[in-house]
Formats: sequence, C-alpha cells, structure tokens
Amino acid sequence: MEEKLIKEIPKKSDNLAQWYIEIIKRAELADYAPMKGMMVIRPSGYAIWENIQRLLDKKFKETGHTNAYFPLFIPESLLHKEAEHVKGFAPEVAWVAYGGSEKLQEKLAVRPTSESIICAMYSKWVHSWRDLPILINQWANVVRWEKVTRPFLRTTEFLWQEGHTVHANYEDAQKEALTILDIYKDFIEKELAIKVYTGEKSEREKFAGALHTYTVEALMPDGKALQAGTSHNLGQNFAKAFDIKFEDRNQSLKYAWQTSWGVSTRLIGASIMVHGDDEGLIIPPRVAPYQVVIVPIFKMKDRSTVIEEGEKLYNELKNSYRIIFDSREEYTPGWKFSDWEMRGVPLRIEIGPRDIKENSLILVRRDTRKKIKIKREAILDKTSLLLNEIQKELFLKSKKFTEENTRYPKDYEEMKELLKTKKGFVAVPWCNNEECELKVKEETKATIRFFPMEEEDVSGKKCVVCGKPAHRIAYFARSY
Amino acid sequence: MEEKLIKEIPKKSDNLAQWYIEIIKRAELADYAPMKGMMVIRPSGYAIWENIQRLLDKKFKETGHTNAYFPLFIPESLLHKEAEHVKGFAPEVAWVAYGGSEKLQEKLAVRPTSESIICAMYSKWVHSWRDLPILINQWANVVRWEKVTRPFLRTTEFLWQEGHTVHANYEDAQKEALTILDIYKDFIEKELAIKVYTGEKSEREKFAGALHTYTVEALMPDGKALQAGTSHNLGQNFAKAFDIKFEDRNQSLKYAWQTSWGVSTRLIGASIMVHGDDEGLIIPPRVAPYQVVIVPIFKMKDRSTVIEEGEKLYNELKNSYRIIFDSREEYTPGWKFSDWEMRGVPLRIEIGPRDIKENSLILVRRDTRKKIKIKREAILDKTSLLLNEIQKELFLKSKKFTEENTRYPKDYEEMKELLKTKKGFVAVPWCNNEECELKVKEETKATIRFFPMEEEDVSGKKCVVCGKPAHRIAYFARSY
Repeated sequence: MEEKLIKEIPKKSDNLAQWYIEIIKRAELADYAPMKGMMVIRPSGYAIWENIQRLLDKKFKETGHTNAYFPLFIPESLLHKEAEHVKGFAPEVAWVAYGGSEKLQEKLAVRPTSESIICAMYSKWVHSWRDLPILINQWANVVRWEKVTRPFLRTTEFLWQEGHTVHANYEDAQKEALTILDIYKDFIEKELAIKVYTGEKSEREKFAGALHTYTVEALMPDGKALQAGTSHNLGQNFAKAFDIKFEDRNQSLKYAWQTSWGVSTRLIGASIMVHGDDEGLIIPPRVAPYQVVIVPIFKMKDRSTVIEEGEKLYNELKNSYRIIFDSREEYTPGWKFSDWEMRGVPLRIEIGPRDIKENSLILVRRDTRKKIKIKREAILDKTSLLLNEIQKELFLKSKKFTEENTRYPKDYEEMKELLKTKKGFVAVPWCNNEECELKVKEETKATIRFFPMEEEDVSGKKCVVCGKPAHRIAYFARSY
Repeated sequence: MEEKLIKEIPKKSDNLAQWYIEIIKRAELADYAPMKGMMVIRPSGYAIWENIQRLLDKKFKETGHTNAYFPLFIPESLLHKEAEHVKGFAPEVAWVAYGGSEKLQEKLAVRPTSESIICAMYSKWVHSWRDLPILINQWANVVRWEKVTRPFLRTTEFLWQEGHTVHANYEDAQKEALTILDIYKDFIEKELAIKVYTGEKSEREKFAGALHTYTVEALMPDGKALQAGTSHNLGQNFAKAFDIKFEDRNQSLKYAWQTSWGVSTRLIGASIMVHGDDEGLIIPPRVAPYQVVIVPIFKMKDRSTVIEEGEKLYNELKNSYRIIFDSREEYTPGWKFSDWEMRGVPLRIEIGPRDIKENSLILVRRDTRKKIKIKREAILDKTSLLLNEIQKELFLKSKKFTEENTRYPKDYEEMKELLKTKKGFVAVPWCNNEECELKVKEETKATIRFFPMEEEDVSGKKCVVCGKPAHRIAYFARSY
C-alpha cells in the first residue's frame, strides 16, 4: 500500500510538469471540473488559500486598507472606456448575453479584473482632497478565457485579491505601489518561503493601462520564471477615462492618481512546485493546513494506552499549532507516514508503547525526512524550533537555487546558450528598444521578466543584443 | 451641518422602505452599481460581512466543516440533471454565451447556487463509506436574475456561504440539516440580536430539489417576514440525478444522502432594518465594524492635551475593541456625534478638558442615546458592560416586537383582518392542502413562512381556511 502511493506519482526530478499535475490530484489540493480549464479547489488546497488570505489581509489592514466588494459583471461600454485596458483584456473575457430567458441589450463581461467597474464607482465617490486616499482591497473570483490552463497557475477562473487605490498626486500613488510590492516580497519570502526578485516590467509586459508595473518574480525548479504578483502605478490613465476628479486644497480641480495590485491562488501553485520532492508536497509550516501530524503506533494490546497518550499530546499542542491526530484504524502506520508525507505536512510525531515507556517521542521532518528522538517534555519547544527551522531552510534552499540560476552572460551567444541549456534568469545590459526584446523572444522564447528595483550603473555598457549603449539591466527568462 | 445630516434621511417611523434605501447610501454601507439590480458593498458594509463570516466560519469549523471552492460556471446540461432544481432556478439564471470572441457550444450558467456542480464532483469523490461524511462549505458570490431588487435583501449578485454535505443515511443528513439550523438561529439571535423563528417550509415554498427545507424567519418592523437562512435535507434526489453512490460496510452499493444550507449578505439588510431608528443605523456590537468611537472636544488652547489623552485612551482600548479615534479637525464634535450616530456605532466616548480635569469620561449609548458619566479608570470594564447590555437589549427589543406581532386569530375573517391591518405572523391550524395555501396568498398576499419545529398537537382543530381537520400549525405572513 505504502509503495503504491509513491509509485503512482511520477518523480518530480524526472518530470516536473507531470509530477505537478499528479501531486495536486493525489494530495487532493484540487480536481478538474467538468468544464475545460476550470478547477475545484478542494479543502486541502483551500486551507492554504485561507492561510494566505489571513496573513496578507492582516498586512493590508495594518497599512490602512479596508475590504469592499464590487460587482462580478461589467457592462461592455465600461470595459471599453480605457483604450489600452480593453485591448489587453477583451480577447479573454467571458460574456454574459442572457439574463433568465431574456437577451441582454448590452453584454456583460465577467470581470477579468475590476479596474473599470471600480473606477466607475470612484468617479462618484471622489470629490475633494478630503476623500483621499481611498485604500480599498477586494477578495474575489475573476475569469479569463485562457487557451492553455494548468491547476493554480493558469485557470479560466481564479481567486485573488485586487487592491485599488486613489491618491492626490503621483508621489503618493508611487509610494503605495512600492509599499505593496514590498508587502508581496516580504510575504512570499517569509510565509511561502520562496525567494523572489522585485523589479519593473518593460513597456511590452506591463499591465494594460498602467504607467508602471512592478512585479515579484520567482524561479521554478525547471528554470522558468513565474510572475507571483504585480503592483501597478496607473498614473492618471483611468482617472481621465473615468473622470475621477477632486478639488485640491486650493480649490482647483485635478485628476486623481491610482494604483492597482494583486496576487492570486497562483501562489499555491508556486509553493507546490518550489518545495515539493519525489515523495510529494512539502508545504511551508506558516501556510500548511496541518503543521503537525501525530501518528500512533501500536499493537492491539497497547491500543488504549497509545491512543490516550496521543490524545493528551494532541490536546497539549492544538492551541499552538494546526495539528491532526490520525487515529484511524483502517490504515497502517506505514501507510499513514507516506500519505502524510505525500500531503506535505511539515512535521510528524510518532508515538508508540516504547516511546511512552521511555518518556520520549520520535519527530520526523518532512523536508529532510530526518528522525529526531526527543524527551516527551520538550515537545512544545522542539515543535516550535523545528517548524521555524523547516520554514527557514525551505527559503534558503529556494534562495540558493534562484541565485545559482541567475547568470550574467558576457555576450548574446552565451546568453542564448544559457537560456537553452540551463534556463533560469540571465541578467544583461539592454538598450530599451522593443526590437531587441522581440528578437530575444523569437530566438530563445525568453522575455524580459523585470528591470531590478536597485538600478545598476550601466554607463559604458552595451546592449547584449544590438551593441548600442545600454539603458539598464534586464532580467530575461522563459516563463509560465 | 448636524441638522442637515439628519434631515436628509427620511424618518424610519414614517417610511421604512425609503429610510432603508437612504440610510444605506448615507452610512456608506452600499451603493448602486451602473447595472440594474447590482450593488457595491462599501467598506462599512463589507466590514459587517467580514464579522459575520468570521463568527459563522468558526462555528462551521467547530462542527467539522471545511471550506472549498467550486467553479462559478455550470454547464447547462449539468444544471438540467435534477428536474425540480432546474425548474426552480432556470428562469433566473445569467448565461455566459461567449468566451473571448468565440461563441460557446454549450451555454454556461453563472451559479445561482452550486448543488449541480458540487454534486458532479461528489460523484467522483464518493466511493466508500470511508469517504463519508463530506462536510464542505463554500464562501462565494452567486447570481440570480431578479426583477425587483433592494440593496442587501435581493440583488442580482450576492455573497453567501453554501454548505453541501454527503452522508451515509437519512438520519445523518437530517441531523446535519438541523444542526445547521440551530447554528443559524443561535448566530442570528446572539450575534445579530434578531429574534428568529425556526421551522419547516411547506411543499410549495421548499427549495427546488429538496426533501425538507428548514428556515429561520425574522420579522421586519413593517410586519413583513424575512427568510434569513435555510437548511435543506436533499434526501437522495441529487444523489440519484448525479449518481453519487457508495459501498457501505456490507459491500452493498447505496445512493448517498445530502444536505445544503446557506445564509447571505441579506443578513446585513435584516440587521439594518430591525435595529435602526430615525437617527440612522444601530449596529449590534458583536458585528459592528467599529464598536466604539472616541470624539475629542476642545478649543484650540486645549488641543494637544485632549488629543494626547484621547490617544492614550484609544491605545488602552484598541486591543479589546474595534475602535476609532476621530481626531479630524475639519469637522466639529457636534457633526461627528450625529455622523457616527447615523453610522450606528454602538458606543461613543466623549473626552474634553473638563473630563480630563475631573478624571472622568462621558459615554453615550447609540441605542438609548443615554449619557453616562464614568470614572476614567472604569473605562475598560464599563465599555465591556455597556456593549454587552446594548447587544442584549437590542435582542430583547426584537424579541418583544416579534412576539407581540405573532397572533393567533380564531377564524379566517380575523386572520385576514390581522394580515391587512397589523401584519406580522399569524399562527393558525392548517389542513396541509395547497389549495388553502393559495387561497390565503391570493386574498392576503401572505404565504406559509414555516411550520414551527416544535409540533403542536392539533387533534380536534380545524383548518382556518377550509374547516377540514388540521394537519399542523402554520405561520403565515407577508414577506420580503
């Protein structure tokens, strides 16, 4: 039985894509719905999302944001108000054409993102400098009609949060966009234990309608980059399109400045990919649905003693940790070990008659699979210590991998070779010319993922593609 | 300014419907979106929903439920699988007909409720008695194409939770449906301070596809009943339509038994209506976005002392209560008083130079508008005491009103007269015959809201309409 569990999952090291799909189904994180491109997030997957929501929501509120809820449907005419925006999103919109038995006079877009409906409301709510800033976030579902889909990473419908803020000037909007970028980076590194780079998107890659798009980018084990979150300074583009004006302190009427920003259930996909191994998932303790599993080991004659001690242990830990006591009798301890390993629970506690006699416990780390024998009375401290250690080491592993796979080719030939053989990020001087960006894409499938936030001096350096004077350093990679 | 605020709101006692609409806009709970029947839930309204979610979610989890997320779209063919269900919902479905530029081969319903998509998944997940029970809840948006809408009470899109469970036998499903009914009653009475009746729906009024529908019904100030939540024992209807079968302990294959249950943002509407008064909202402390507001009162020379003391007070209370310190200088204290009263904050603390000198504070209850002078050092205890008292008294008021407006007419003439002049609930013996139910509806606009959970002995009693032997006691009322 134990062997079977593992056999059914392809090795992560052999075939990441296949492993990813299989582990999600086996660990019951998600399942395919009977409509193309749509998925069900099952309780084990949704619990990760609840932890992400709880932690992020706290950060948003600490920085002055409140939540609200805007309609799912956006009339076609509203979506068309900002020209760049509609160009970017119209091709992937799902359209409602009938309400009940009646054909609608105007089609309604199922929101692919909510700028246009929210801006329509902001233009009603913003009158004076006293109304600013508006710092609103929304937790919601959105729909994008995608051709190629993959659970969590790209699905027709997904869950996300989208922040939409309004400010009196460019500086405040810019500060907001960067504050959020920092929150995202901090959250993904600390809570999801994934190393990310932060940077600005190129003109070609930026959000449809934005002035600047900032991004957090993570590297997946196959060397492809994943955009894990974005924060946009929208400038006055939407304010002008939707007529969002306010009277400033000098009674003059001005267009407002805005930002928008979001992360999605895609973060769950990133966590799965980055941390898992051939045995299955490894979920970072900070967001794991269960941080600890207690597995009792006993023969029938010891049953009541072991169950009793196990329950005592469970009750001792349950207020400090998310914990499950797996006392099911229809499965063997060995089967449970590999089942919970497959499901990625960071720490396992084994308790049997000998442990009880010796007043000790066996702890097993999911990440290293190392067994540790501890004194019974040390359990609270040791659990805390180990969970912290696992969290930290998962991040360090991700950091090391990302840094080792960030390379600095000396010329275009080496760059192409690296993108072909090693993948990962390549950081190169670039001329700021879309032609060079397109050439790289055509020849290597890599795109500019970002310009790093800390700008490097490029004086004297030349664009890796065309040899003209470099404008800034660009990080290229193939991506999800 | 103060006067203006109040003048703009119609008196609740004069015109409930108009007051309801106006107070929602003025207190910024919600606003109309630019599409018919759709609304935006603004931060002050959404914060109530967040409190509702937090409190209810805890109860669901304590009773073994987990959350999951199912797709927004349901293929037409799936919706048609359960005959009664589609008949009940098809007329109010919004249909997606296009994805991007392409016309879909099969239209997709935007979920009006999720039984059909969830049952399609359950038929994949349920195989053995070991898989049961499944106790899943979903927090989601749903869409019903309504002709007449009213903020929070009936809108095209609304937010809700929908529980969907699967059990091995009738008894377990029945127990689940009633456990949830109890959770709803307890929650609405304790947290929302609204008296409710629980009961079973008539055949005519039950959920499309259910075996039994149980309901919590509240009475609004205009004497109309509001269905505040429902819990359905679905029997095997969906299991048979969707082929949800399991092997029981004796290896025989059986259809599963199911429940579903939900409450929605309608609960916010009920709270507004039941508790508010001519001055505006009164939000029950347990779900109020802010439970306490501190308003400093000062002339310029005392400014820094009062602000400093106010901040000290705020810091003392902020870990125990949801509290705001309104130190804005562009508004007068008097304006703030009526503004926060209008927004329904249960308790106001006034602090001025004299209070500081006397080492005292003024507290003002929103519900009674009574001023209470207390010693400065008593503030923590007194706040707790007063908030509890407000919560309790709001409920008692609602209970008294509901009970006073539940009447027991001796014959059909009196029943009609009561429904016409006093409204409220009338409890009468009824024959269980749909004809009598329809006759009442036609002649009084009242419907059977429920049969009370505690069945009364009706032997010897006669149906109030037709005079045939009574089957049970029915509560009739006009309703929202």
